[in-house]
Amino acid sequence: MKPSNLHHETIKIVALAGGVGGAKLADGLAQVLPPENLTVIVNTGDDFTHWGLNISPDVDTVCYTLAGLANPVSGWGRRDESWQVFQQMERLGAETWFRLGDQDLATHLERTRRLRSGESLSSITRDFCQRWGIRQRILPMSDDRVRTMVNTVEMGELSFQEYFVHQRCQPTVKGFRFDGIESAQPAPGTLEALQNADAIVFCPSNPWVSVDPILKTLKNQTVFESKCLIAVSPIIGGETVKGPAAKMFRELGFESSALAVARHYGKSLLTGFVLDNADAALADAVADVGISPLVTPTLMTQPADRARLAQDVLNFAKSFLL
Amino acid sequence: MKPSNLHHETIKIVALAGGVGGAKLADGLAQVLPPENLTVIVNTGDDFTHWGLNISPDVDTVCYTLAGLANPVSGWGRRDESWQVFQQMERLGAETWFRLGDQDLATHLERTRRLRSGESLSSITRDFCQRWGIRQRILPMSDDRVRTMVNTVEMGELSFQEYFVHQRCQPTVKGFRFDGIESAQPAPGTLEALQNADAIVFCPSNPWVSVDPILKTLKNQTVFESKCLIAVSPIIGGETVKGPAAKMFRELGFESSALAVARHYGKSLLTGFVLDNADAALADAVADVGISPLVTPTLMTQPADRARLAQDVLNFAKSFLL
Repeated sequence: MKPSNLHHETIKIVALAGGVGGAKLADGLAQVLPPENLTVIVNTGDDFTHWGLNISPDVDTVCYTLAGLANPVSGWGRRDESWQVFQQMERLGAETWFRLGDQDLATHLERTRRLRSGESLSSITRDFCQRWGIRQRILPMSDDRVRTMVNTVEMGELSFQEYFVHQRCQPTVKGFRFDGIESAQPAPGTLEALQNADAIVFCPSNPWVSVDPILKTLKNQTVFESKCLIAVSPIIGGETVKGPAAKMFRELGFESSALAVARHYGKSLLTGFVLDNADAALADAVADVGISPLVTPTLMTQPADRARLAQDVLNFAKSFLL
Repeated sequence: MKPSNLHHETIKIVALAGGVGGAKLADGLAQVLPPENLTVIVNTGDDFTHWGLNISPDVDTVCYTLAGLANPVSGWGRRDESWQVFQQMERLGAETWFRLGDQDLATHLERTRRLRSGESLSSITRDFCQRWGIRQRILPMSDDRVRTMVNTVEMGELSFQEYFVHQRCQPTVKGFRFDGIESAQPAPGTLEALQNADAIVFCPSNPWVSVDPILKTLKNQTVFESKCLIAVSPIIGGETVKGPAAKMFRELGFESSALAVARHYGKSLLTGFVLDNADAALADAVADVGISPLVTPTLMTQPADRARLAQDVLNFAKSFLL
């Protein structure tokens, strides 16, 4: 899959990713970079316990995507999935608002068993990646418990999955709290990867609940200061492809636009900002914020779109490194 | 399924059962008795933890059989079972010596979650039975942890499933230990059911590792003294249909025969003993032990065999009650 007309052998990238959108760009980067040059640091604020199992939805989505195991239609869960356990759980009266497929369930079962035996999430993830044939490094942001809590107008504070899946993002968002983030330590390897990176890419994930928890967990912002940081907008034409990011911007009193995303991260953090052709009119305003804009197609409908966007992002990053 | 030429409406039965053989006779009794007149007390000494889940193999085998959900070929596990989770667990490096199918797994998952939340095994079992449409009462022998340990010549002490499944009953048995049995209390309802029973049936389960743990857990042998107790031999023609009972008798220095089973329980416990036509020659010897013999076909190959044997057992029991 690696185009021969590109030479990315020497550029080292750390990508920060949430779920489906983040996994797609991470997959694109994996297609165009040598495996040893890509580290993906993944949000674990969405992690939760269901059916008594420890579930790490974003870590799994990134892993399944890079392993070629992801459901190509939904973007999350496994391809060719079956639902035998789920049907029987339903019959036994278990909670059914979060659907776990049979293949996916094995991941949670074995992870839960190993976590209970004292192994860390990052160690388990490393082993799973090896077994799934993933050669890039995928790191959870932390081995410690961080839980994204969504403060809503109608229902008060909800755990992220309660808000996201059970309530289908319907309640109006007032703010967020990242439970445990003060004491959570960055997972082993994260800070070293950031220090060694030539560029850091914020994937087109939700700024509020995917990228922010990673940034807050990594804490030591000094690691970012000397780096080339490129963010890809998760908002296209005022809306998100998937997920509640646009709705959150609006409910928190901002306009929902790529520009609002650029402003959210700010010029103190970002070197460059990638926005879709549909938002070309916002490029000057991004530049006015003090961030270099790149206008390019960012919608990743087909697998090939991922590699193309990744190439654009890498070329953009290299323009700052030369 | 209840034959109209029989009138068992008034006889109350408690059956003590282990796995497959016990479940078959329990199913036969369920076919010929009004549901409210049958209580099955099931061995939990085989219970163990696998993949981090609490598994109660005998309870599940009895429940699946009475619910019509059991695999008709193997006698354990679920009919029309699939193995998606298992295949993925294998890929993740999990232990694979104990096979758990997808439908079966839901039982262990939901039971484990509820046990961890503080609910008792008997309460969970009662709810599962209701959801599976079982109208008879199925009680685990205890809500407390009892673990059958098999002392072997070659490998020392093994947990029961390690001996039974992982080592395929190959090691030579020297004896048994029922870890936790001194402090284990009979499950709620067991002693009352025994007190109210007109007859108690020892199903054709392994005397050493299925029926003995139940008897030892129930402790209060006085409940047995005034009762009609009928045991059905799990040994036919010197061998067992399934499982290591015959091998255990031999390795422990006894002959492996229906007579040895009758002697094992003894006349202080048993009123009557049911042995197969193939063992008709042993009937007089059983009578000499002081136990009334009944010779009848005991092999339960077809579902109809179960009801027929159950009828024979009930008629036999009634002959002592009249």
